[in-house]
Amino acid sequence: MKQSLIFSKTLKQAPKDEQSVNARLLTRAGFIDKLSAGIYSFLPFGLRVCQKIENIVRQEMNEIGAQEILMPVLQPKSIWDVTGRWQKFAGKEMFKLKNQANKDYTLGWTHEEVITPLMQKFVLSRKDFPVFVYQIQDKFRDEIRAKSGILRTREFIMKDLYSFHTSENDLDKYYEKVKKAYFRIFKKIGIDKQTYLCLASGGSFSKYSHEFQTITSAGEDVIYICENCGMAINKEIKTEHLKCPECGKTKFRQEKAIEIGNIFKLGTNYTKPFDFKFIDKDGTRQPVIMGCYGLGITRMMGAVVEVFNDANGIVWPENIAPYQIHLIQVGDDLKVKETAEKIYKGLLKQGKEVLYDDRKDKRPGEKFADADLIGIPLRMVVSKKTVEKNSVEIKYRNKNKVELAQIKELGKLGR
Amino acid sequence: MKQSLIFSKTLKQAPKDEQSVNARLLTRAGFIDKLSAGIYSFLPFGLRVCQKIENIVRQEMNEIGAQEILMPVLQPKSIWDVTGRWQKFAGKEMFKLKNQANKDYTLGWTHEEVITPLMQKFVLSRKDFPVFVYQIQDKFRDEIRAKSGILRTREFIMKDLYSFHTSENDLDKYYEKVKKAYFRIFKKIGIDKQTYLCLASGGSFSKYSHEFQTITSAGEDVIYICENCGMAINKEIKTEHLKCPECGKTKFRQEKAIEIGNIFKLGTNYTKPFDFKFIDKDGTRQPVIMGCYGLGITRMMGAVVEVFNDANGIVWPENIAPYQIHLIQVGDDLKVKETAEKIYKGLLKQGKEVLYDDRKDKRPGEKFADADLIGIPLRMVVSKKTVEKNSVEIKYRNKNKVELAQIKELGKLGR
Repeated sequence: MKQSLIFSKTLKQAPKDEQSVNARLLTRAGFIDKLSAGIYSFLPFGLRVCQKIENIVRQEMNEIGAQEILMPVLQPKSIWDVTGRWQKFAGKEMFKLKNQANKDYTLGWTHEEVITPLMQKFVLSRKDFPVFVYQIQDKFRDEIRAKSGILRTREFIMKDLYSFHTSENDLDKYYEKVKKAYFRIFKKIGIDKQTYLCLASGGSFSKYSHEFQTITSAGEDVIYICENCGMAINKEIKTEHLKCPECGKTKFRQEKAIEIGNIFKLGTNYTKPFDFKFIDKDGTRQPVIMGCYGLGITRMMGAVVEVFNDANGIVWPENIAPYQIHLIQVGDDLKVKETAEKIYKGLLKQGKEVLYDDRKDKRPGEKFADADLIGIPLRMVVSKKTVEKNSVEIKYRNKNKVELAQIKELGKLGR
Repeated sequence: MKQSLIFSKTLKQAPKDEQSVNARLLTRAGFIDKLSAGIYSFLPFGLRVCQKIENIVRQEMNEIGAQEILMPVLQPKSIWDVTGRWQKFAGKEMFKLKNQANKDYTLGWTHEEVITPLMQKFVLSRKDFPVFVYQIQDKFRDEIRAKSGILRTREFIMKDLYSFHTSENDLDKYYEKVKKAYFRIFKKIGIDKQTYLCLASGGSFSKYSHEFQTITSAGEDVIYICENCGMAINKEIKTEHLKCPECGKTKFRQEKAIEIGNIFKLGTNYTKPFDFKFIDKDGTRQPVIMGCYGLGITRMMGAVVEVFNDANGIVWPENIAPYQIHLIQVGDDLKVKETAEKIYKGLLKQGKEVLYDDRKDKRPGEKFADADLIGIPLRMVVSKKTVEKNSVEIKYRNKNKVELAQIKELGKLGR
């Protein structure tokens, strides 16, 4: 993509009303734009990152046999009355609205009330179990305060997966499978080393739920990480004489972290109210056992920025960077321009994702500053000096070294 | 994909509360599920069709230089006050809600109030024009009656494109470009022959707007098609002695049609209230000229079903079918099973999209009925009889002929 064609521009200053690092950097670099507190537009760079994260998540969900669907945002009150959650969340983080005919709806912040009766229509026989269904979808929460950029917003993109089983044992097995899939996702996104499996309060069905907490000073949670086994414990469930429930040791370090995903063994909490049952081997109707597994797409994007940045801007991990290569043309010398364009076309032909800074109204210093701010992993500079040597100046965003590379060798660089 | 793994199932009967052909067929075939009037979930097959339409649209939008972004659903009242549309649409098809702090929002059914101030932040210089931005996004309309399946819903997916220009002439040129891109989309989706460019009422800026109307008895609009030049005129603007504004002729045929897209020359209707101006060559500040271009993703999906169906089910056009090939295993004979699985893997390896009916609990007649209902373009049947001849029985959904094809030749069939 030619940078001269992209409408969004970098900003010298972060907006005064943004305090969080992710919002300040993403806004300055032209990835997002705030419409209202906790409500953001995703601009071309930001949407690309978002779609890349979505595709990584999609791939890993398909890998564990989950089927993608898309459920509605608008949910009628009637289904929330079945589980009693309409009343329970009255006046809380649940957006509520009425239509012209005075019918009540909520904007979905979770979809147990939709997926349970939906599966009940189709999954009829014991042989149909287990079944796993997910969606990547816009969610809504009426947050009282939205001040952490895209880490906590009123509208956000989430992946939510639901699993249905005929035994607790089967749920347990799938639950472990999802944990592993999540860490494969974190590895691809680049935050596996910063992200910990964390015990949090469970529900009526199981003692604990599990969160996935990424360590960052911007985090809203406090977690205790076991120095022995690496299991984390959310402060919410910390006891005075804390013992690691995993290994029994008692040495912990305290960290601030942001919860980017959580998984729950729901048991029969939702299947019972909807009377979703299967017939077991003995011919008895038994309630279906259920699990749910959330992962914040836009929140992960924010967490990555919180983790990977320096004084000059964002440092995107390769797999989710908006582009792989930032090709910068320095000067308008005809030979330089022609060489840069040739390299641009050559890299595109090789299937590389290239942002080509062809802008004429920017000084080299401005272009370099923008490149650092935007944070694409590999920078290639074409100038009069490099052209004379049939080469390009190479710099990785996360390294300091600047070196020359022969033009004919460029295809080997970058992803 | 193995059909035994897909949770959604075909239904013998359409739901009693669905009158429209698209909802009846899409529900019976397991593409969609109604949550509430005018609100549907998209099941695995349905989501695949939807994503295919989205990608066709995306490709053609990128082709005409438009940049993809994603704007929010939640929009604060303040921006709608600027244009006066909050008041204008009070109590009408605009969903309204309040947050915990009593702040007013609407759920976006269009995004002029978001995109105009957004572009104003970035598009500063005359040289930055023209600029074209689009999104594919969930939209909401508080419809009084929702009875046409996914042709008219309370929640739907739309592509909306906005263009910004420094002259009417430039807008006119882009407007024509979009018309052509739309017909390329219709051709790829398979409804170009049924879809007419149709004049409809304009606004304060131009006499007419243009709709794209697909002929179907399920349509809510009546249009008059000029027998000479093929231009259509919406009944809304029909005069007593109608003359074709395009060619001047007076012979028309009347048709029922569904509006799947519409495009507007907005002029300065939205840029003026937001004071979005550019500085012209003479140094004068002039309001920016704007166009908007809508296209219903889920509505097109519904229109396709209304146009392409027969007594047995849906007949998907190739480019948007959930799968290209429906491979059906008849009988559980080991040789048949092994052959079917080998063919399945072979076709996948060649990059074909295959739905493999490996279900053991269905009789051949049920499998054939399901195949017709689901409507995948190419059906391949593997049975004891065909295996003996090293072949497969081939039938295209839109043809009656059944023939044998050699297994080694299968790779040449289908897309």
